[in-house]
Amino acid sequence: IAQAESFPDGTTDHIPLRKKAYDIRKPHISEQPWTWSNWYQHINWLNTTFIIFIPLAGCVAAYWVPLQMKTLYFSIAYYFFAGLGITAGYHRLWAHSSYKARLPLKIFLAAGGSAAVEGSARWWSSLHRSHHRYTDTDKDPYSVRKGLFYSHIGWMVVKQNPRRIGRTDISDLNEDPVVVWQHRNYLKCVVTMALIVPTLICGLGWGDWAGGFIYAGILRIFFIQQATFCVNSLAHWLGDQPFDDRNSPRDHVITALVTLGEGYHNFHHEFPSDFRNAIEWYQYDPTKWFIWLMKFVGLAYNLKTFPQNEIEKGRLQQMQKKLDQKRATLDWGTPLEQLPVLSWDEFVAEAKNGRALVCIAGIIHDVGKFIQDHPGGKTLISSAIGKDATAVFNGGVYNHSNAAHNLLSTMRVAVLRGGCEVEIWKRAQAESKDAVPVTD
Amino acid sequence: IAQAESFPDGTTDHIPLRKKAYDIRKPHISEQPWTWSNWYQHINWLNTTFIIFIPLAGCVAAYWVPLQMKTLYFSIAYYFFAGLGITAGYHRLWAHSSYKARLPLKIFLAAGGSAAVEGSARWWSSLHRSHHRYTDTDKDPYSVRKGLFYSHIGWMVVKQNPRRIGRTDISDLNEDPVVVWQHRNYLKCVVTMALIVPTLICGLGWGDWAGGFIYAGILRIFFIQQATFCVNSLAHWLGDQPFDDRNSPRDHVITALVTLGEGYHNFHHEFPSDFRNAIEWYQYDPTKWFIWLMKFVGLAYNLKTFPQNEIEKGRLQQMQKKLDQKRATLDWGTPLEQLPVLSWDEFVAEAKNGRALVCIAGIIHDVGKFIQDHPGGKTLISSAIGKDATAVFNGGVYNHSNAAHNLLSTMRVAVLRGGCEVEIWKRAQAESKDAVPVTD
Ligand code: HEM
Ligand code: HEM
Ligand SMILES: [Fe+2]
Ligand SMILES: [Fe+2]
Ligand SMILES: [Fe+2]
Ligand SMILES: [Fe+2]
Repeated sequence: IAQAESFPDGTTDHIPLRKKAYDIRKPHISEQPWTWSNWYQHINWLNTTFIIFIPLAGCVAAYWVPLQMKTLYFSIAYYFFAGLGITAGYHRLWAHSSYKARLPLKIFLAAGGSAAVEGSARWWSSLHRSHHRYTDTDKDPYSVRKGLFYSHIGWMVVKQNPRRIGRTDISDLNEDPVVVWQHRNYLKCVVTMALIVPTLICGLGWGDWAGGFIYAGILRIFFIQQATFCVNSLAHWLGDQPFDDRNSPRDHVITALVTLGEGYHNFHHEFPSDFRNAIEWYQYDPTKWFIWLMKFVGLAYNLKTFPQNEIEKGRLQQMQKKLDQKRATLDWGTPLEQLPVLSWDEFVAEAKNGRALVCIAGIIHDVGKFIQDHPGGKTLISSAIGKDATAVFNGGVYNHSNAAHNLLSTMRVAVLRGGCEVEIWKRAQAESKDAVPVTD
Repeated sequence: IAQAESFPDGTTDHIPLRKKAYDIRKPHISEQPWTWSNWYQHINWLNTTFIIFIPLAGCVAAYWVPLQMKTLYFSIAYYFFAGLGITAGYHRLWAHSSYKARLPLKIFLAAGGSAAVEGSARWWSSLHRSHHRYTDTDKDPYSVRKGLFYSHIGWMVVKQNPRRIGRTDISDLNEDPVVVWQHRNYLKCVVTMALIVPTLICGLGWGDWAGGFIYAGILRIFFIQQATFCVNSLAHWLGDQPFDDRNSPRDHVITALVTLGEGYHNFHHEFPSDFRNAIEWYQYDPTKWFIWLMKFVGLAYNLKTFPQNEIEKGRLQQMQKKLDQKRATLDWGTPLEQLPVLSWDEFVAEAKNGRALVCIAGIIHDVGKFIQDHPGGKTLISSAIGKDATAVFNGGVYNHSNAAHNLLSTMRVAVLRGGCEVEIWKRAQAESKDAVPVTD
């Protein structure tokens, strides 16, 4: 332990987005139970306004504002712009450094991310790193172990104890001028990119000022927020776990469709520094395609991928684990060490007494119940009773399938002393007194 | 070997369908090479006529005979009747005894089987048992190892050496009066069921004598023949091998669709006495459904199934086999026994010399190339150089994923003498002369 502590844990605290001096000596509101008199103190009203009230107001306002086709198309395009800001920018570039971007691309991504209204890249990445480092623990800022709703928006709507959330190293982000600038000027960035720009474009472009504000602005924000929040909720709840099932992340195409390709989340948590989330060509990962395109035009470089060998190893180990679990649920016959030991003569005597015993590979099997069902006929299997049928069973007459060997193992009743007919032992004994057969 | 020979192999020779005395001393035609002067002797003209010439003539004749809807529907129904005769009758009842049938059902199935023109149940089952017992060997009457065409119709169109084909026990068939009667009266059965009955039904029913003969008779025969032949060709060639891949049988839904459910052929060869070919509810196996129905109306009983436990075991072992094959193709790092052994002081000295060596769990890793790529940042991983980072790597700072452990194993360069920092050894040594550190 002394040794572990001698290591710096490398974390530097982040500056919260909406810094509010709180008295470190007073207990945080999240540590007090909810009552009729304090419930409103538990709610983070600022976040609730951004995530719930404004979108609701937008829905109501939409009733009076007709949706124009041009505005619709633009809103969708702007949705993708904001979405890529989060997925290709906040997530894969800044939180995970899975590739390097040149200045114009960084500005584009920071602008898109601002348009999504999900905090600054610095705040978002810091929390996201905690999420990876402390996945599913109490230090995970949006742990799905606290419920699907909590991981989706609960963690923003209800006040969280800032001391609870795991800290991580964000020194690289503090060195990135775009990240720092966006963080310092976050409010301006948001108002400009999320509301003013789309309103201006629709207004100046085709005169749809109100539509630009409501649809390309407010409602588009709502959709992109809910979509990206799904990475924290849905992607930790729905789907397969091909790489590791110790934690909650899962792969599902539905999540991928909703989140611009962030739905292969089991892969992503296992290989977070890979710029891809989907590794198969047929899987939907438009963020990856966008990064490829940026590399093609020279704006992105150093795209990191995890070695394929390691990916295959992870997949294989997880399959092995599932197989082992399955194996444990099946009946593999009585373990040999639990079987009684019979001598050859006892075996023959028992068989003469009417028990349908067959010796195969040193193990004695009771095939009585199976004679009627033997696919090779009654005659053949009966002819082996009281004999060593190892050779005939393994090809002498018919080379039995794997299934037959399995079935055979469920019919074990005893082990043969000496392991075979021990004629050799007997002869040796007759010839010399030195060779003594094994007894126990 | 003497012992193996003391076993009867249980086979009784079958009477070939078209018995023709041949001189046992003369070499069979199949043992002679094909030449311009003997090629026609290689061809089995009788089979060729039934399988190729008559259907071709039927196609030509169909040009002058318009297809009536009623005749079409009847042909399809009669197709299923003949098909079930082969699949539920010849195959699952007689060749594999996978259930027991009462007399009316046996007669129904023998009649259907005759309508398919594929030989008597006795001849067909005998060959089919050889096919199972000697699958893929030279004794297999329609081994796919001799080519897809050979397994489909080649084995009938070209004369085969009757001594080559593996023999099997058909004593149970010889005790079945329906089988024996059909075999003795095979030609009458065929002509009646394959041609006369469908012609009469269409003729007397709706006056379509010619259509009944051509469509419900000849062309229907052609289709059912080709479909069932696919079990010998396609089912040994197309698809997956979930239960065993040592032999050729395969599972594929296309084969199942064509062959009334006989397409889960990998399962079938592994569990031939199971009355089912498809074990999942969503797989297409109408033959199984038919047998169920017959059980429901009391005409079939003793439906045999292989224990589910054994089926799962087979599937699991095959998956394990594939996994092991895959495992062998991956790089798991240098095996520990091939690594040099370093003492703690050598390790520290090398690290001071500039090699980025980190000791984790008694193994020394060169992380130099990985520092830049470390998802947890350069600082943290660099802080472990020249130290034992077992605790920090395994949760002290961050509990690394399985993927990280895999990656780590590819960076191995040496084993630490003593397995850990051996401070304990050193202290023990200082305190008493008895405890000597391991040297080699
Ligand atoms: C003692 C326990 C035995 C068990 C559990 C057993 C099991 C089976 C099983 C499951 C099959 C189906 C095909 C396969 O899975 O490979 C089969 C087929 C067969 N068995 Fe056995 N068998 C036993 C003993 C014998 C013996 C002693 C002989 C011969 C002396 C024999 C001869 C055959 C033959 C010839 C077949 C092939 C049937 C065919 O495919 O037509 N079996 N047996
Ligand atoms: C020595 C070889 C090392 C290797 C091969 C390695 C590998 C990795 C890998 C693959 C990850 C990605 C996440 C994961 O797979 O779990 C990771 C993350 C991390 N590593 Fe290491 N690591 C090494 C050493 C260290 C050391 C010595 C420390 C700390 C002293 C450390 C601290 C971290 C942390 C904190 C993260 C979490 C990053 C995040 O998710 O935000 N690593 N490491
Ligand atoms: Fe996640
Ligand atoms: Fe992530
Ligand atoms: Fe087959
Ligand atoms: Fe079969």
